[in-house]
Amino acid sequence: MTDPSELADRVQAGDLRLYELEDHADADAAAAARRLVVERETDADLSTVGDYAFDAERADTAVENMVGAAQVPLGVAGPLRVAGGAADGEFYLPLATTEGALVASVNRGCSAITAAGGATARVVESGMTRAPVFRVADVAEAEEVLAWVREHEPRLVEAAESTTSHGEIVSIDPYVVGDAVFLRFVYDSKDAMGMNMATIATAAAAELVEAETPASLVALSGNLCTDKKPAAINAVEGRGRTVVADVRIDRATVEERFKTTPEAIAEVNTRKNLVGSAKAGSLGFNAQAANVVAAAFLATGQDAAQVVEGSNAITTVEARDEELYASVSLASLEVGTVGGGTGLPTQAEGLDVLGLRGGGDPPGTNADALAEVIAAGALAGELSLLSAMASRHLASAHKELGR
Amino acid sequence: MTDPSELADRVQAGDLRLYELEDHADADAAAAARRLVVERETDADLSTVGDYAFDAERADTAVENMVGAAQVPLGVAGPLRVAGGAADGEFYLPLATTEGALVASVNRGCSAITAAGGATARVVESGMTRAPVFRVADVAEAEEVLAWVREHEPRLVEAAESTTSHGEIVSIDPYVVGDAVFLRFVYDSKDAMGMNMATIATAAAAELVEAETPASLVALSGNLCTDKKPAAINAVEGRGRTVVADVRIDRATVEERFKTTPEAIAEVNTRKNLVGSAKAGSLGFNAQAANVVAAAFLATGQDAAQVVEGSNAITTVEARDEELYASVSLASLEVGTVGGGTGLPTQAEGLDVLGLRGGGDPPGTNADALAEVIAAGALAGELSLLSAMASRHLASAHKELGR
Amino acid sequence: MTDPSELADRVQAGDLRLYELEDHADADAAAAARRLVVERETDADLSTVGDYAFDAERADTAVENMVGAAQVPLGVAGPLRVAGGAADGEFYLPLATTEGALVASVNRGCSAITAAGGATARVVESGMTRAPVFRVADVAEAEEVLAWVREHEPRLVEAAESTTSHGEIVSIDPYVVGDAVFLRFVYDSKDAMGMNMATIATAAAAELVEAETPASLVALSGNLCTDKKPAAINAVEGRGRTVVADVRIDRATVEERFKTTPEAIAEVNTRKNLVGSAKAGSLGFNAQAANVVAAAFLATGQDAAQVVEGSNAITTVEARDEELYASVSLASLEVGTVGGGTGLPTQAEGLDVLGLRGGGDPPGTNADALAEVIAAGALAGELSLLSAMASRHLASAHKELGR
Amino acid sequence: MTDPSELADRVQAGDLRLYELEDHADADAAAAARRLVVERETDADLSTVGDYAFDAERADTAVENMVGAAQVPLGVAGPLRVAGGAADGEFYLPLATTEGALVASVNRGCSAITAAGGATARVVESGMTRAPVFRVADVAEAEEVLAWVREHEPRLVEAAESTTSHGEIVSIDPYVVGDAVFLRFVYDSKDAMGMNMATIATAAAAELVEAETPASLVALSGNLCTDKKPAAINAVEGRGRTVVADVRIDRATVEERFKTTPEAIAEVNTRKNLVGSAKAGSLGFNAQAANVVAAAFLATGQDAAQVVEGSNAITTVEARDEELYASVSLASLEVGTVGGGTGLPTQAEGLDVLGLRGGGDPPGTNADALAEVIAAGALAGELSLLSAMASRHLASAHKELGR
Repeated sequence: MTDPSELADRVQAGDLRLYELEDHADADAAAAARRLVVERETDADLSTVGDYAFDAERADTAVENMVGAAQVPLGVAGPLRVAGGAADGEFYLPLATTEGALVASVNRGCSAITAAGGATARVVESGMTRAPVFRVADVAEAEEVLAWVREHEPRLVEAAESTTSHGEIVSIDPYVVGDAVFLRFVYDSKDAMGMNMATIATAAAAELVEAETPASLVALSGNLCTDKKPAAINAVEGRGRTVVADVRIDRATVEERFKTTPEAIAEVNTRKNLVGSAKAGSLGFNAQAANVVAAAFLATGQDAAQVVEGSNAITTVEARDEELYASVSLASLEVGTVGGGTGLPTQAEGLDVLGLRGGGDPPGTNADALAEVIAAGALAGELSLLSAMASRHLASAHKELGR
Repeated sequence: MTDPSELADRVQAGDLRLYELEDHADADAAAAARRLVVERETDADLSTVGDYAFDAERADTAVENMVGAAQVPLGVAGPLRVAGGAADGEFYLPLATTEGALVASVNRGCSAITAAGGATARVVESGMTRAPVFRVADVAEAEEVLAWVREHEPRLVEAAESTTSHGEIVSIDPYVVGDAVFLRFVYDSKDAMGMNMATIATAAAAELVEAETPASLVALSGNLCTDKKPAAINAVEGRGRTVVADVRIDRATVEERFKTTPEAIAEVNTRKNLVGSAKAGSLGFNAQAANVVAAAFLATGQDAAQVVEGSNAITTVEARDEELYASVSLASLEVGTVGGGTGLPTQAEGLDVLGLRGGGDPPGTNADALAEVIAAGALAGELSLLSAMASRHLASAHKELGR
Repeated sequence: MTDPSELADRVQAGDLRLYELEDHADADAAAAARRLVVERETDADLSTVGDYAFDAERADTAVENMVGAAQVPLGVAGPLRVAGGAADGEFYLPLATTEGALVASVNRGCSAITAAGGATARVVESGMTRAPVFRVADVAEAEEVLAWVREHEPRLVEAAESTTSHGEIVSIDPYVVGDAVFLRFVYDSKDAMGMNMATIATAAAAELVEAETPASLVALSGNLCTDKKPAAINAVEGRGRTVVADVRIDRATVEERFKTTPEAIAEVNTRKNLVGSAKAGSLGFNAQAANVVAAAFLATGQDAAQVVEGSNAITTVEARDEELYASVSLASLEVGTVGGGTGLPTQAEGLDVLGLRGGGDPPGTNADALAEVIAAGALAGELSLLSAMASRHLASAHKELGR
Repeated sequence: MTDPSELADRVQAGDLRLYELEDHADADAAAAARRLVVERETDADLSTVGDYAFDAERADTAVENMVGAAQVPLGVAGPLRVAGGAADGEFYLPLATTEGALVASVNRGCSAITAAGGATARVVESGMTRAPVFRVADVAEAEEVLAWVREHEPRLVEAAESTTSHGEIVSIDPYVVGDAVFLRFVYDSKDAMGMNMATIATAAAAELVEAETPASLVALSGNLCTDKKPAAINAVEGRGRTVVADVRIDRATVEERFKTTPEAIAEVNTRKNLVGSAKAGSLGFNAQAANVVAAAFLATGQDAAQVVEGSNAITTVEARDEELYASVSLASLEVGTVGGGTGLPTQAEGLDVLGLRGGGDPPGTNADALAEVIAAGALAGELSLLSAMASRHLASAHKELGR
């Protein structure tokens, strides 16, 4: 019995729970039945949400209680030339967004960067983290636990790595606050964003800590990870990829493309991104890095909530006699090309546009390249917005393109 | 001439620029042509991206260089009972996400909250901001400009409000750093998220400041706004809606639904969300508020990059003799029910599920209600994840549902 | 019976408690007796500590369990020309410190500033704060309490101001986190630093809140004040005096005094104070403001623990064709010229060196002037250290002068 | 010729500079002459400042342009029982302060702690830092420099350690922001606070980096150290000693000593120190740690400006059936028992009171013990103030003792 309408009746009658529908029908029929329930109870018409372009079953590791899909307009910016440690060549950057003017803005930046010979990019640090918190009796016991951890690190590594075929421990960093001990496990997760791998591996290591020391696990994540919260530890120590990109653009190109001068752009950057952010108590010293990160994340199946960490970026601009120098440094860009949402149909196509779907060779290089291209895209966004401000076009640009 | 293939040829031949396609074809044909260009140049197959369920023209204020849409699986959590200042009743919360286990987790929390009688929610502060930065000669001139601003606030209000039919100025807060003056304009933007309105209105006010004082505008946004960067000023002073939600759940319900005790949940919250976040130098003292914010934002057409500010949340939990008390306080939740991405087809349907599409009566109440429901949803997510940790199911939950 | 030795015997015999000595002898004899006790029990010789230059009674509101005084070497830097809103003229800045090279460094900066015509300084914001935290039943009650506070602000002002002859309320800013309500009271405390006045006045207002609303006071300070902790709220909103100082130094003077160029100093400032501080997750974007603040605080009787807030400073430097522009902006400099330690003998003499002992005419101008001179001194310290780094003399300077 | 009056004449006549006096007279006469100059030019009477109790020559590495000494009242709190990793026994804690009620407050806490059997304390991390910033050509060169640093760490260690007889490198941590490379050198400085040692050693290592790589030194301190600024990097990673202290106090003692309950104290701590600090965007989750740190620093010759980092402390309190558990964790307490101001007469006596003057055996243990005792003292201050608030005595305490 897989008629959506009957199934919906049964849910409304209380015979079935909303989340049990997949037990009684295939994924698409279950979603259809669920749409019906919601439509009947809310008077919403979900026909567009229900008009998704893939088998619902392909989303079963991505969502529960599925009713359909949100469709986010997807544009491309580029070509964007990037000389990275892993990425090399010209890229069209797919950007899914609902913010008018964003793709146009990034595109303008890409155009200038590519005209100037391209951006340089490097992943300078890499590691996904998970930091459980343990309860101990007191600070004396905390010190003992720390000593045990430092002495038996190989055993912890072995326990953690036994749960994963590709993840490797980079380091285990301990922190103590009173009778709480935090161990921040850092992993090389190769082409995966790595959060789930890190969670599972850390659970195994935490079990060993509990077995061998008096420490008792309180939470597998103690917020020193830090996942999806704005935290200085990520801005300082990094999480996911720490990636930097920069470009030199000769003065003539700046003036032609951006209708302003290197000096004016540098002044905007200093007063806004450095001094203004300083005064705001910010961890993000940039103009709109999160815009590019969010749009690229949506287009390529990254975790949208990790835009939070993606906004930990510092932009620098220097006006020189002959050129403009600009850089953007993203401390904690959490990306993957396998796992998570990267396998969903439109998202996989987004990665294909970049030629970065799936595992890299050697492992990790695809995710590195993705980080580098996004960083170069963020640089394009910075240059475009800073120069728009420098030429005072921000408000009018919004009037024309935005809403 | 609107044949996509021919148009694609012309772009590749250099006769047309990628962004000029809409000048030569309707929006869907232009997107098709652009897909062809990208497919030819990257070997990607964009058929699913191109299989979107709406007229491309409807996205023309949301994206440029459109090639199609990213489809993000959308589920529902609920019903969730909310007694808000504006929201009142039971809601299904639409959540678009690629993170397995998230909707299930929030759903479990909703179920417990509703069983306990529902969450209470309130918007306690409201205001969209834009903060231009001006250059002055020195600190003496800075003081003069401040004096002028304080004395002529009505004129600034008039200039700003002349640009908008619905926005109203709440306050103008000045800051000085050396020879830079920042004016943080705060607006009541009613049911709109308000960023563009605030930008345009502030441009008019900034023009007046330039005309009447020696200050010279450097950038219409001086990063004291702060938009899309993690900044203490938003966590402290708020941006968009400052919204709080809480719930009391009797001990029996906690134990039955969450398989743990109020004491254990409270301990996880203290050690993880309060102490762990403190040690991390965080502005987010919560477990996964950003997950719920991101998924609700995607489902209802909010700006995905503003998940950054949405993560500025503090969760508190108290174990009492007879019950668990829990709250979540989101300092800067930037939401709207009109404008931006809210008018896109699937996103509008998402708002319909909540009964909150379009302007509220009185104005502002729909956006208030949306903020309250999201806050209650975030509370559901907090309770569910904290209790999962308290009962140590986190890793195994991921093993089963996620990947 | 006031023989110190006998009193010490009685303390050691358990007949008297250490803190009861003032009940049995005058302040100096009590301190002598206490020294004896400590010397006998620890083998320390406290003869220098006991050789203080004032009547112990004069310190009875400054310390308890007094045994003597710590003597901190005091030097002067200057003359330093300051054109402030309240300060005007040339000043010798008294600096008490144990850090070799500090006074010499500040002195070099003063010399350059004065040679260039002096620093400009302004207090742009002023207000001492105290923020009690109240418990409420839930977020609905929190909203009611906020409404009451907003409606009855005049009554709160009256209650608070009834406790003080000189303090005035500037504003009352409410914040809500779950079932906690914080009210940040801001006072104009004139020439007093104002912490005690603010505490007492706020206690009266808090009593009224408790009497008239369901809110229950949990702590008279809820840490949103924020006193003596590094907190963004102070860096953003200010506490005590928000004071800015700047200077223009012609290129020749820069080169002659600092043996380096405006460009080199600006580069050090950008890379160190702006970019380096950004990366460090800092609230202090300066080189050594705290050094000058600490030394001036010790010399003039300010609260040494408030050096914490005094370090919330942003330094900017710009190299121009003809000159160097430099500024320092101290967000939260908490100073007074009456009350606290300002009446102690050596500290009062320190204020006399500046001509700023006691209340100003009109009230508040002496504390304003003190803030302006310290800001100008901090600017001197910044210029000197930045230029020392620019000319790479830091390490060698420490080798020669320091320890 | 060493008559102060004649020397003062010569300075006023312009024949001598104020800082040249030591070339013409012994240190005391020079100070006397300088006092005369200042007195004549400012109408101040510096007789108490000039009535210091030591040979001025002993201060010649601590101050320049000396005119005398600031005398800060010094009291003692205790006895305070501490079971530390290095400290063991009962201590009188010397506290120099001008804040009335502080010593009494700490003393009350000491008394309760000691009655409860004493505090436990541990140094869990240790290291003084210096982080130079280098300019590189671009991010590609940044990566090369990082690679060189990682490969040649032993050479850097050798260069750095060649400058010091006791300091040892713990680690070298690299950070990149655009074309800026920061290397954070961490040193074990034994019983010295270590800032100067770290500066000199780092200068040597930086020279090697410049010689062997394309990197160019911009500033020996790039603010990632971070010295004397409130910075998350210190709160997270530590600087100087990371020291934790805790205590268990049985319920009866709590009620007797503090006139309140464990529950009330815990509630104040949660709402004020955790939630309030979270809302304030703070790096200090405590009540008054800086008060104790400042007063102990002044009494023992530490650097008063480093109170800034000393305020990076988290206080936790838990109410248990039978007892109160409380802890304080100071992330970055920068202390020494040799060097700096520790050799000054009154300050050395302050260290003698603790039995911790000079180098420890083994080296480092005296500074460790000092950190532990200060941490225990901070814990005493926390307990006392939190319980005063819990019993609502704060305002009245200030009325009686302070002013």
